[in-house]
Amino acid sequence: MSNLILHEYARSGNCYKIRLTAACLGLPVERREYDIMAGATRTPSFLDTVNANGRIPVLQVGDRFLPESGAACLYLADGSALLPADRFDRADMMRWMFWEQYNHEPNVATLRFWRLFIGDDRLNDLQRAQLPAKQVAGEAALALMDEHLSTRDYFVGDRPTLADIALYAYTHVANEGGFDLSLYPSVQKWLGQVAAMPGHVTLDA
Amino acid sequence: MSNLILHEYARSGNCYKIRLTAACLGLPVERREYDIMAGATRTPSFLDTVNANGRIPVLQVGDRFLPESGAACLYLADGSALLPADRFDRADMMRWMFWEQYNHEPNVATLRFWRLFIGDDRLNDLQRAQLPAKQVAGEAALALMDEHLSTRDYFVGDRPTLADIALYAYTHVANEGGFDLSLYPSVQKWLGQVAAMPGHVTLDA
Repeated sequence: MSNLILHEYARSGNCYKIRLTAACLGLPVERREYDIMAGATRTPSFLDTVNANGRIPVLQVGDRFLPESGAACLYLADGSALLPADRFDRADMMRWMFWEQYNHEPNVATLRFWRLFIGDDRLNDLQRAQLPAKQVAGEAALALMDEHLSTRDYFVGDRPTLADIALYAYTHVANEGGFDLSLYPSVQKWLGQVAAMPGHVTLDA
Repeated sequence: MSNLILHEYARSGNCYKIRLTAACLGLPVERREYDIMAGATRTPSFLDTVNANGRIPVLQVGDRFLPESGAACLYLADGSALLPADRFDRADMMRWMFWEQYNHEPNVATLRFWRLFIGDDRLNDLQRAQLPAKQVAGEAALALMDEHLSTRDYFVGDRPTLADIALYAYTHVANEGGFDLSLYPSVQKWLGQVAAMPGHVTLDA
């Protein structure tokens, strides 16, 4: 595999997903930090070279750039045991990864970003107006995960896949966004299982 | 392949993506329509059996249910020429599919839904407050597509992939959400190319 460079903001759960995937696969990744709060991913040179969408993470593979955390995880894990061998299960893993980005991240991760990184008293009016709806939607996402995990150990099949890594990233720090994880016992048990995966690294590693 | 049933709301671009993928692959899909405006995807039986997330589309494969449009397209196209053979290109296709769900659909598709299906005068206060930001973000998504397509015929590599199908679905009806497609000439050229794909079906077919 070509030399891997992760363009990231280390505290972002989306960036952590890629580091966790790489760690579970034993792949070394060089890290480049950007201060997103200071606009470091909106500079002309970042937009021209790294990601025209002005966001991290971006996985650099040789001289090519791959934005979107899920895509980067899939690139790293292609052909590995982190992807199910069965066709339906593989698609079902993708289902959870898309669901995470659509139903979970914009609520659970966004509230963490707003509350922990920006701060409740510095939110703008539009952000403040969205707080209640995002709280409800985030709780619904966590409840759906808890129900799904009440009868199984992992999201797809009987072993960890990228779906577990993708969902672990922001779920395990959901309390930082104002969510009470003690309400979701099956999620808590599953968090412990993902944390015990061989090669696991923590978000702050 | 097992019998395929698409649980859908036909006018949804997310449902159309799956029909378009199946049509390009020559796969027959049975269709079951749900009146989302009347809450038909929030009934106890839908939530218990089809999708606990209360959303369409869901692709039923035999007796298993697969929510999330991107996952259903990937299931159908697994092993076909709609997926690039190259590892990086395959991940790059996923990049555009994730980007569509995160940066494009919540703006371009949501404004179409709000304006065409609900109606400007029936939006609630929170929806109305989000209109300007979603307009700006939708325009930014279309501009990013236009820039990307200014130097190539398709999103990834030199032939159509699921990334093109996923992005075509809501882009070609973006005018219904209040976006002016005449501002994006490379997008318009690309729309014509996707419409000319063998097996192509229209949204209202």
